[in-house]
Amino acid sequence: MYLWSNDFLPSNKQTVVPDITNISQEMLPHQLQESPFGWAIFQRRGFDLKEPLWSGSLTFIQAVSTSAGNLDENLSGKKFASYTVFKGKAALSIHPILPSFSKMESGGSRMNRNGSVMLTFFPAVGQRKYDYTKKQLFALSPTEVGSLISLGPAESCEFFHDPSMKSSHEGQVKKSLSITPLGSDSGYFVNITVLNNMQKTTDRLSVPITKAEFAVMRTALSFALPHIMGWDQVLTHHPAPPASSKPRVERPHPDSEWER
Amino acid sequence: MYLWSNDFLPSNKQTVVPDITNISQEMLPHQLQESPFGWAIFQRRGFDLKEPLWSGSLTFIQAVSTSAGNLDENLSGKKFASYTVFKGKAALSIHPILPSFSKMESGGSRMNRNGSVMLTFFPAVGQRKYDYTKKQLFALSPTEVGSLISLGPAESCEFFHDPSMKSSHEGQVKKSLSITPLGSDSGYFVNITVLNNMQKTTDRLSVPITKAEFAVMRTALSFALPHIMGWDQVLTHHPAPPASSKPRVERPHPDSEWER
Amino acid sequence: MYLWSNDFLPSNKQTVVPDITNISQEMLPHQLQESPFGWAIFQRRGFDLKEPLWSGSLTFIQAVSTSAGNLDENLSGKKFASYTVFKGKAALSIHPILPSFSKMESGGSRMNRNGSVMLTFFPAVGQRKYDYTKKQLFALSPTEVGSLISLGPAESCEFFHDPSMKSSHEGQVKKSLSITPLGSDSGYFVNITVLNNMQKTTDRLSVPITKAEFAVMRTALSFALPHIMGWDQVLTHHPAPPASSKPRVERPHPDSEWER
Amino acid sequence: MYLWSNDFLPSNKQTVVPDITNISQEMLPHQLQESPFGWAIFQRRGFDLKEPLWSGSLTFIQAVSTSAGNLDENLSGKKFASYTVFKGKAALSIHPILPSFSKMESGGSRMNRNGSVMLTFFPAVGQRKYDYTKKQLFALSPTEVGSLISLGPAESCEFFHDPSMKSSHEGQVKKSLSITPLGSDSGYFVNITVLNNMQKTTDRLSVPITKAEFAVMRTALSFALPHIMGWDQVLTHHPAPPASSKPRVERPHPDSEWER
Repeated sequence: MYLWSNDFLPSNKQTVVPDITNISQEMLPHQLQESPFGWAIFQRRGFDLKEPLWSGSLTFIQAVSTSAGNLDENLSGKKFASYTVFKGKAALSIHPILPSFSKMESGGSRMNRNGSVMLTFFPAVGQRKYDYTKKQLFALSPTEVGSLISLGPAESCEFFHDPSMKSSHEGQVKKSLSITPLGSDSGYFVNITVLNNMQKTTDRLSVPITKAEFAVMRTALSFALPHIMGWDQVLTHHPAPPASSKPRVERPHPDSEWER
Repeated sequence: MYLWSNDFLPSNKQTVVPDITNISQEMLPHQLQESPFGWAIFQRRGFDLKEPLWSGSLTFIQAVSTSAGNLDENLSGKKFASYTVFKGKAALSIHPILPSFSKMESGGSRMNRNGSVMLTFFPAVGQRKYDYTKKQLFALSPTEVGSLISLGPAESCEFFHDPSMKSSHEGQVKKSLSITPLGSDSGYFVNITVLNNMQKTTDRLSVPITKAEFAVMRTALSFALPHIMGWDQVLTHHPAPPASSKPRVERPHPDSEWER
Repeated sequence: MYLWSNDFLPSNKQTVVPDITNISQEMLPHQLQESPFGWAIFQRRGFDLKEPLWSGSLTFIQAVSTSAGNLDENLSGKKFASYTVFKGKAALSIHPILPSFSKMESGGSRMNRNGSVMLTFFPAVGQRKYDYTKKQLFALSPTEVGSLISLGPAESCEFFHDPSMKSSHEGQVKKSLSITPLGSDSGYFVNITVLNNMQKTTDRLSVPITKAEFAVMRTALSFALPHIMGWDQVLTHHPAPPASSKPRVERPHPDSEWER
Repeated sequence: MYLWSNDFLPSNKQTVVPDITNISQEMLPHQLQESPFGWAIFQRRGFDLKEPLWSGSLTFIQAVSTSAGNLDENLSGKKFASYTVFKGKAALSIHPILPSFSKMESGGSRMNRNGSVMLTFFPAVGQRKYDYTKKQLFALSPTEVGSLISLGPAESCEFFHDPSMKSSHEGQVKKSLSITPLGSDSGYFVNITVLNNMQKTTDRLSVPITKAEFAVMRTALSFALPHIMGWDQVLTHHPAPPASSKPRVERPHPDSEWER
């Protein structure tokens, strides 16, 4: 039920073609990406979205079975879902990543790392063929998500990431993500640029996003935001109310703004 | 507590008549639709919304009891709820459909099919009588939902579906859904057209939607969107935090954008 | 932490006075209303918001203890929470009511009654004294909630309810709720009128709502809407994914729009 | 993944530097604040955000271990997560606080205190050094949250709190929180002023918030609002549907607006 278009559709008029043979292949990139086994190395070439389910991926599946004894317990029970748009020159896949909490001495737990929303770009290498091994990743922080969901129709934004920030390698690799309007309130261009000063390479991938697709992203990111901030876990963890029905003694609340 | 009007109400002024005898009948279409037993064949004629609860449906109920031994395990525990608007010439019922996940070798699970939002149209065959056997279905994908919830007051959108896309039957049946403004920010017309080139038939059903009803749909679809994308399952599945309170070892996060 | 004002505050500038002695009394109306024991008859006069916790209500509490053996099982485990604004001439309390589901033969369950959002008005009978026995109720249906949350700053809406609709008593009692702008984008007047043609009485209660209070209502009603429609129960009831990791057989989905 | 800037960034162009060594330190203030053990007294000076994880805090950690036998049961299982922005002169941290419910005689439970959203301000005492012992707290009520999330780009709002309201100490300490636009739709200044008439002191802390950061707050506060009002607990507590599939007897609903 994805939008399969090789060209950008500039208006709300859309031809949507449900294509069941593609659905699991759309999940392929996701599985590869999340795997701790480095599955991507088994994939020799770009995968063809027209080919039947899993065909041409047998080597790949074998490799997975072999390493299954090496099961990562952290993955067990985890769920994965992404939203992907395939366009003429590249595809963009988006999925949320949970924050992590650690136990405190008091018995409670506190968030020790924010979640994020991961953008994965991968280039087209033919008509409806994409090379997932050439993917580029960009993880949006809560504030960057806030920037994206508050973007006006004619506004643009740009984020810069440096993996080696504050180390001796600072500035060797630079990533930037820019979102620029297509004009006439018809969507945005989402562009990633990765500059590697060591390898003297610059990778650029650009995906046009329709207004409808951006509405999906904005709604999904707005939904994800309180979750990647850990607020849903704070707010939906309801302790059982005390059983007393007598008038309760009013003592100052530990969370009160008046306590100092 | 539904809006029972035979004519379209163009403004926010509404006469809402709670009518308890209708409520279960309103659920009838839904039950029919979801049933794997083909209950619809037991229904000889359009059902009359004025008739008392379940009356005239006894044959229908009997049939259900008979086939209950044939219980579908997938339905057990499942819940159904739809939002329906009844208008002079047709009714429109909307309900969400969950995505499905499959287990991965790693122990986690991944979404292998998006959910959707199903629109069901059925024609009026008399005053407050509707023929559910003549229903027409249209399943909105996440991107189509995005298009609908971002629709401006004067904007329209149109979607085309072909069940036989990329098969030898491509083009034999064509469905289109269009949403067009009524003017003066007073709501939209929702129209479905089903062209069957084999049977040389064209079915058209059209339901006017007030601004208030569209606000219900927009809010319900915005709520449903992260769920049909599977993101709520990714984001609300919280693993227990590790018990260690010692400074944790920082190793590169498998989901990090810097891992390549 | 409620806004205690005897006069309407027309702008965003607010004096908010946390007043812990009042909080449980604010819950009093709610408890009375939800109780199946007819507690209201024990309350001889309007309650004074300035009085200490539960004082003057001892008779009332006794009565409850006596009837506790008569415990309503449906209430057990149920939770109650309302949002109340107290103004000079009347107070308005809002709380959501869950939809109800019934079991189907198939093992699943379907919504057989929508939830609603209940508005409770009660008049002031002195400075910061309100008479809850003179309360007037108005239950908003999903579509009425949609009307309210999509209301523009200069728009108004009005709903009419008749408890005896389609019976011989039709028209004897008429309720109307109107929401009209205060002007300058500063909030709304919420008015209830109850006409009783038998008793020849007309009750009118009117509560001015600031822009901030309306934002609370709009946000809470938008949150409540998918829940009173039963969609959250449909969308968050996740069956366990099947254990198979082999390529699944594609059979037509029972919910598919192509099935007819 | 926080925005580390010593100066206010006025546009959507942002340099975001993921800095893992800082993340746990960002949580430090939160832990201190929530602790019932008065941990703050162990912290002799402002903490330096550039220092490695937990360094200079060993005394602090010891102190916690010692008092762990004194475990607060209410904290056990509780979760904490805050959103913090660090700016040149001060930092602002925001976290939600759950409402509390108490058991009723009927077996149900009702909210007896609203939740809130706590704002914590603490001053910078050097470049990227903040003194958490000089923190100032301000707890937003549901209506104040409503005011904040409905704030237009050029609008401002102000709230006044008095901890000794209606006691003999009324007016001795006054807190005010104001939110004023930065101009050109580029964000807001969030200012807290605490006037202590006894100690003849006035504390002022001011934090500039970008449009992106305000979008995070607006989205997180909108998410939190129904939760601090207790509505999520009312609406997601779903009793099991009754097993009967026979036509149910229609008796008047206890919550009906017609019951009086």
